[in-house]
Amino acid sequence: MIIVMQSGAEGEKVESVVDRIADLGLKAHVSQGEFRTIIGVIGDETLLKPELFAGLAGVESVMPIMKPYKLASRDFHREDTVLEIGPFKAGGAHISVIGGPCSIESRDQLFTAARVVRDAGGTMLRGGAFKPRTSPYSFQGLGEDGLRMLQDAGAEVGLPTVTEVIDVRDIDLVCRYADVLQIGARNMQNFRLLTEVGQTKKPVFLKRSPAATIEELLMSAEYILSEGNHRVMLCERGIRGFDKATRYLLDLSAVPVLRGLTHLPVVVDPSHATGRRELVVPMACAAVAAGAHGVMVEMHPNPEKALSDGPQQLTPEAFRQMMAELAPIAQAVGRTLHGVPEA
Amino acid sequence: MIIVMQSGAEGEKVESVVDRIADLGLKAHVSQGEFRTIIGVIGDETLLKPELFAGLAGVESVMPIMKPYKLASRDFHREDTVLEIGPFKAGGAHISVIGGPCSIESRDQLFTAARVVRDAGGTMLRGGAFKPRTSPYSFQGLGEDGLRMLQDAGAEVGLPTVTEVIDVRDIDLVCRYADVLQIGARNMQNFRLLTEVGQTKKPVFLKRSPAATIEELLMSAEYILSEGNHRVMLCERGIRGFDKATRYLLDLSAVPVLRGLTHLPVVVDPSHATGRRELVVPMACAAVAAGAHGVMVEMHPNPEKALSDGPQQLTPEAFRQMMAELAPIAQAVGRTLHGVPEA
Amino acid sequence: MIIVMQSGAEGEKVESVVDRIADLGLKAHVSQGEFRTIIGVIGDETLLKPELFAGLAGVESVMPIMKPYKLASRDFHREDTVLEIGPFKAGGAHISVIGGPCSIESRDQLFTAARVVRDAGGTMLRGGAFKPRTSPYSFQGLGEDGLRMLQDAGAEVGLPTVTEVIDVRDIDLVCRYADVLQIGARNMQNFRLLTEVGQTKKPVFLKRSPAATIEELLMSAEYILSEGNHRVMLCERGIRGFDKATRYLLDLSAVPVLRGLTHLPVVVDPSHATGRRELVVPMACAAVAAGAHGVMVEMHPNPEKALSDGPQQLTPEAFRQMMAELAPIAQAVGRTLHGVPEA
Amino acid sequence: MIIVMQSGAEGEKVESVVDRIADLGLKAHVSQGEFRTIIGVIGDETLLKPELFAGLAGVESVMPIMKPYKLASRDFHREDTVLEIGPFKAGGAHISVIGGPCSIESRDQLFTAARVVRDAGGTMLRGGAFKPRTSPYSFQGLGEDGLRMLQDAGAEVGLPTVTEVIDVRDIDLVCRYADVLQIGARNMQNFRLLTEVGQTKKPVFLKRSPAATIEELLMSAEYILSEGNHRVMLCERGIRGFDKATRYLLDLSAVPVLRGLTHLPVVVDPSHATGRRELVVPMACAAVAAGAHGVMVEMHPNPEKALSDGPQQLTPEAFRQMMAELAPIAQAVGRTLHGVPEA
Repeated sequence: MIIVMQSGAEGEKVESVVDRIADLGLKAHVSQGEFRTIIGVIGDETLLKPELFAGLAGVESVMPIMKPYKLASRDFHREDTVLEIGPFKAGGAHISVIGGPCSIESRDQLFTAARVVRDAGGTMLRGGAFKPRTSPYSFQGLGEDGLRMLQDAGAEVGLPTVTEVIDVRDIDLVCRYADVLQIGARNMQNFRLLTEVGQTKKPVFLKRSPAATIEELLMSAEYILSEGNHRVMLCERGIRGFDKATRYLLDLSAVPVLRGLTHLPVVVDPSHATGRRELVVPMACAAVAAGAHGVMVEMHPNPEKALSDGPQQLTPEAFRQMMAELAPIAQAVGRTLHGVPEA
Repeated sequence: MIIVMQSGAEGEKVESVVDRIADLGLKAHVSQGEFRTIIGVIGDETLLKPELFAGLAGVESVMPIMKPYKLASRDFHREDTVLEIGPFKAGGAHISVIGGPCSIESRDQLFTAARVVRDAGGTMLRGGAFKPRTSPYSFQGLGEDGLRMLQDAGAEVGLPTVTEVIDVRDIDLVCRYADVLQIGARNMQNFRLLTEVGQTKKPVFLKRSPAATIEELLMSAEYILSEGNHRVMLCERGIRGFDKATRYLLDLSAVPVLRGLTHLPVVVDPSHATGRRELVVPMACAAVAAGAHGVMVEMHPNPEKALSDGPQQLTPEAFRQMMAELAPIAQAVGRTLHGVPEA
Repeated sequence: MIIVMQSGAEGEKVESVVDRIADLGLKAHVSQGEFRTIIGVIGDETLLKPELFAGLAGVESVMPIMKPYKLASRDFHREDTVLEIGPFKAGGAHISVIGGPCSIESRDQLFTAARVVRDAGGTMLRGGAFKPRTSPYSFQGLGEDGLRMLQDAGAEVGLPTVTEVIDVRDIDLVCRYADVLQIGARNMQNFRLLTEVGQTKKPVFLKRSPAATIEELLMSAEYILSEGNHRVMLCERGIRGFDKATRYLLDLSAVPVLRGLTHLPVVVDPSHATGRRELVVPMACAAVAAGAHGVMVEMHPNPEKALSDGPQQLTPEAFRQMMAELAPIAQAVGRTLHGVPEA
Repeated sequence: MIIVMQSGAEGEKVESVVDRIADLGLKAHVSQGEFRTIIGVIGDETLLKPELFAGLAGVESVMPIMKPYKLASRDFHREDTVLEIGPFKAGGAHISVIGGPCSIESRDQLFTAARVVRDAGGTMLRGGAFKPRTSPYSFQGLGEDGLRMLQDAGAEVGLPTVTEVIDVRDIDLVCRYADVLQIGARNMQNFRLLTEVGQTKKPVFLKRSPAATIEELLMSAEYILSEGNHRVMLCERGIRGFDKATRYLLDLSAVPVLRGLTHLPVVVDPSHATGRRELVVPMACAAVAAGAHGVMVEMHPNPEKALSDGPQQLTPEAFRQMMAELAPIAQAVGRTLHGVPEA
């Protein structure tokens, strides 16, 4: 950490910063420049927050040098983390394709979707049973009935399942039915929820909040990792942008940025990001070309009848077309696409 | 709701939209323009979501005409809502000044702060006992011990208290100690939490998420109102911006926008928005001039020693200066500032 | 155009809107809903601006239905526009690869770069002679000397050239030396410059401003097209975002959005968007996978010595590697990559 | 400037950075931390750009410590700059109120507006003769005829005039007619235009681009100042935001931020920022309360007939009401409002 003093900050102010550094068990290195005094902190600054110094008299700015996360960092774990989820691998050279409806609406709808995903080569079945909805008047999901259907559909087609958990009190319930726990974008900084999914044995699929920086996403992953659960997948699903041409703004350069910073698998959700069906396939292709470890897309047997997010859900036909387009791109970037179980 | 069909969308596609409108119990009004067919929905569209139509074949765009919220709307309740919180009124012509430390750190710290707030004419004491922190390694708050101190400090100085609740399981506990429940920005779309604070009898102080539109903030208020709790205050605390000169971007025009759309009191938090002490007082003055019903500011007896958010907490001296500057501005815009109990 | 009246807006206000529509030579269609009156404008609204009505008494909102641009629209010209630029085609199934240094610094630097671009299969040579620089104290380009070098280098290697024009008074000069005129992001709404490059015979490479919506980009293209110059290429080069992990935020979903709205070729510049060399290749691959008609990347024989934008310029080696990675992706999406002149 | 080396960057890489610093005539200070080597640059770094180092092998990040602008900085000139513009002062304790129509449409319209501004206590008359319009099909202004009307109207009512210049070739013309040259938001980084208005003797009113950081605005001011023209006023007029409730997002905390960084007067334009008439007065009040040196607002004798920006232009009545509300707020923050000429 580098602490830059204001021009003209006197000795006493410098000493007070040096003292606080010593109080924290670290060493200070004072360097007198032509225009300003600069103080370096020597030692492990991971646990320091800039605000510990930014409020001191005479301090102009504080610049962290080390990352504020550890376990999520590629410095800590050089190799890509590869997870085993059911019969498939996720991360590293493996491309995960997670498909299924936005909301679980009926046994029939879900089983049809599950077969489409499996037959086209997908590796995981998604479906929401507890839906976070902007409006209190919108469909809120089928709850435990939906979870039961998801478990049955996954078993029927041989795909592991992922579903969102939105309340700490539901974690045990969701763990009984699903293979992967999804933390939705709106809960990315629900720290209690992060802590408690970190105490389960289930892989966690963590979505980036539309207001979160990449560093904040990694800090949220750190909450889970620091509880001992190291099976975390990260998902970019669109951030806030000023152009209403798309629902959110897909930040695809987050993919190579994240791959440089962390060893965790990075997945992209073009369905929520764009909100428009015709943009989902091109952006799924782009995600894999950019180096993503997979995509999560919404697919509904009959999107025109969907109870939520109709305009962004693919038809079965479009899902199959996406798989056909993804295959050569995955190959072009040295990845394995199809959801064929490892021998 | 207006549904615009694509150029050249044939009769069958138009009929299919008209049928869906009829299925939903509303009437369609088809208008054949020179270039496109346009279908108006006649009836109460509040419960409709654009996505019910946006996914249908031949639909180009769907434009809602009515607001998706009702109880929060000024159409529903023309007059400003005025809340009674302890001995004070909030909303309407009354300016609330809510002050206190970011985190409750000790009995001494909190009581000192409480006296400063009360003596300077503040109307509410704030202090965090459960802190949502970006890093799992940061100070997480004193929990119930902190709540107890807050209750005692409020009683001692005669100020009602506000503190954040971050977990549905803590609602009862927080209700026992505090007068107002704060929903933090990161939980603005934690819909379970909104629903359950809507079932309490306590006023709710709801902060806008940095990624939320004004409409989404009002939808979150609607969650609380629709459970029967009509005592909600809204708080603008900065949204995401691209300029790192401030921590967040204070969206002050949200104040007059919200005052046009809703009857609920609108408060501004310049401390979290700017993250810099020297910007807090000018932006508090600007908030009141823009028509806000109050400000929430962080103040610490000794900000240099604060365990969180040091750089943005005012000193007692700066808090008193802010009160002195706010008084004539409040008067200039026809408002009452000082926290003198109503007779 | 649909004009929504405020709830309770009386007959006189409606009449006044209807009269203004008639004044403009169009017809009004009044529809009395349950809660609001809605007025449709019948006829060619392309030349109408919402503000002609938004200020009238009783008007709540105005919603355009037709696009405000015509010549740039795919409605106007269904097929992809394919330009002939030197021996190459751009647009349609052809992938353009435009490479070269940020600034032209010397004959040696430019000729070396030109040979790398040509040998690796690029289709156009770029290089700045007039540099728009944020700081008045930065290197501003070599001017006409640079243009002369660019012309010579292009001739030497057989590549057409593109360079930025930043001043209306330089248009003739730049036309004498370069094959394609670039309008930089900061000049996207320099309407005089757009008008006057629209009066030349040269293809125009128009970059999106970091603050511009996709619609605004198309309106700027419309300025050029409406002067009779139909040879326009659009370029996405990053918009403003809140995360400092990258210099700008590459809006890659703008590619399929633009391809739906316009017939003009769409190119992506990952160098300026990301500002970081190691992100350029993955994002170039992603751009082609998303359906872009090409990429513009900065490459410098020795980026460590570059006078501008060093950290984002590729090395020759990285440029060649990019070409190798792009080839199979282009093929996967049915495009032709290599800059082999058409027979 | 602080240069942070990557973890494990060897001696040769460090030496290469040190050598480059020496080449630039400055001194290096190498500090070996526990985890990383850090190199400080000693000397006047104003002319250095981070990119000179960011591209070197082994460099992780480069952090500037000094501001990249000089003449615009409060370090360079501690006291507020106070300009004399016609009979009025601008900056320091003086509040400027600049009013008038968006576009000059007719002699009658402009003279009526001018009298309203003067009678209500405004200090400058605005009106556009050359209009930068998003669409090539919109009204583009009256050109020299409009300038002549502006000069006459200013003379008639005794107010100095401000109007936009959008083309370097028009500078002489505009200088003949107007008292202050406005650089519009879209031209904030039209560096040729900045340089050449910097060579005139006229005060310059420089608007912030909706995509510009505060630092970039100051760099653009530096272009003008460095040509010898020190009479520059800065104007915040709204940046890009994600909420469509307002046209742009007024960044009012830019006011105290700018006042800390620069000595130049800071004015706010709430008309373009919000795009909605009913938000203009509250935000003008907020701007003055936040410490702005003035406001620029659009006012039209009959906004419903305006040829541009109708919905955001105040009526004469609303303009007078704004002046009445501003007066006590200006007084509350220790400023002088009314446009009474200094004796």
